[in-house]
Amino acid sequence: MMDLKEFLEEEKKKVELALDKVLPKPHGKVRRLVEAMRYAVFAGGKRIRPILVVVAHRWCGGNDPNIYRYATPVEVIHNYSLIHDDLPCMDNDDLRRGKPTCHKVFGDAMATLAGDALHAIAFEILAETGNIEAVRLVARNIGANGLCGGQAVDIETEGKKAELDTVNFIHRNKTAALLKTSLLLGALLADATTEEKNSLEEYGENIGLCFQVTDDIEDAMQKSDENKATYPALFGLERSKKIAEELYRKAVASLLPDHDNELLEKIAKFIYTRKL
Amino acid sequence: MMDLKEFLEEEKKKVELALDKVLPKPHGKVRRLVEAMRYAVFAGGKRIRPILVVVAHRWCGGNDPNIYRYATPVEVIHNYSLIHDDLPCMDNDDLRRGKPTCHKVFGDAMATLAGDALHAIAFEILAETGNIEAVRLVARNIGANGLCGGQAVDIETEGKKAELDTVNFIHRNKTAALLKTSLLLGALLADATTEEKNSLEEYGENIGLCFQVTDDIEDAMQKSDENKATYPALFGLERSKKIAEELYRKAVASLLPDHDNELLEKIAKFIYTRKL
Repeated sequence: MMDLKEFLEEEKKKVELALDKVLPKPHGKVRRLVEAMRYAVFAGGKRIRPILVVVAHRWCGGNDPNIYRYATPVEVIHNYSLIHDDLPCMDNDDLRRGKPTCHKVFGDAMATLAGDALHAIAFEILAETGNIEAVRLVARNIGANGLCGGQAVDIETEGKKAELDTVNFIHRNKTAALLKTSLLLGALLADATTEEKNSLEEYGENIGLCFQVTDDIEDAMQKSDENKATYPALFGLERSKKIAEELYRKAVASLLPDHDNELLEKIAKFIYTRKL
Repeated sequence: MMDLKEFLEEEKKKVELALDKVLPKPHGKVRRLVEAMRYAVFAGGKRIRPILVVVAHRWCGGNDPNIYRYATPVEVIHNYSLIHDDLPCMDNDDLRRGKPTCHKVFGDAMATLAGDALHAIAFEILAETGNIEAVRLVARNIGANGLCGGQAVDIETEGKKAELDTVNFIHRNKTAALLKTSLLLGALLADATTEEKNSLEEYGENIGLCFQVTDDIEDAMQKSDENKATYPALFGLERSKKIAEELYRKAVASLLPDHDNELLEKIAKFIYTRKL
């Protein structure tokens, strides 16, 4: 098995080719809007969500030749959500991945609309799969009982000391929901068994939480903030590290023993250690 | 045939019952988010878009018992779009239908998320239809080459003198696209013929433009603004009235002679005259 770093780089290129194909080219009167959409999507990122679609798809025995194309909606949605999160009325971030955020370049109105248009196109691509369950899966996990719900509770909790159940709710919805959805999307498009779907769901839940906890640990090592809805704020660094490790172990343990788990195990470890 | 005003009132009630059922109830940690979603959706409105779904469905011979439920996504999308349009970074409106706008009551961040969550739930309901073409139809018409595109060009044109092709582009995408989509959604769910779909598409395009022109005429009678992307600003009131009448006539003429057109004709007239 090849090196994971190499694998992720290769997959990222394929995902970015697919993203370039599914997004409209700047044209006519909507040139500026499409430029804003593309600016946000191509500002960088590891493309971990669409890569999870592809990996889960193959883990379930799928080999849809369009899988990279069908994997793009989760990345498109991730980016719409980042555009809106960065807006002045939300987290008010000027930079993302070292570059000016979408609204800093295109203005708040155009950025809001670029997010909305990305949201819509994600479903246009999902419709191409011909799989109505795929549409339902994604829609259900990015609304009030998923991504948007997590973001709303995060905003309401800002500057307050959060209880554990609130922290878990935010992580589960804001972070884990879309990662889990990515895995399940790949599974659905491979006609996966219920056992496979359950396994991936548990794996996704655990790597999702692990992802958030390790992210928060990294932040907390730079500056501690007791009023953040994070594990380090609740439990301190050492215990949070233990929890992250436990989540990683649970993710790996949830995989089916008769499947080829090497790649998903390595990805879980990558998320846990952020090293390769 | 009953009085149109009565008919619209009856249909509106049925649509609102369906809206109440498809939207989540305020619960748990997302209470505030769901309250914001419901506040926006139940702030009023004639529900003309979902009513068009139902009327077009029956015009094509459909009698799906869930048609009111399946008609809700276009109203949910209309309201997500209004929430975002009203934001300070967009049109900055404090009032809509005489009530404080969503962001005035819930704050800009929660309003942005309420719009996003409504956008998502619209596709969750569309998935329930089991009709992947319905998902594709709606997604295609509310993104960069539809609703969002029209809104983006409208914002870019603000305060500038707009050319006719720009005014037409805005009207076609910002207003006509979702009305046309509503009619075609009803048609799709009735397994309509190509002839029926083409007829409804032309009808929708014309009532959509008529809707916008008569709206702008009403505004212009209150205060004229030469720098608005409207027909009255381009052609003056009298010629705009003639154009609205022509659009109404074209809408009616596009209906199929062997169909029962009374209701769609009355609705077109209602849109043209805003009287019953």
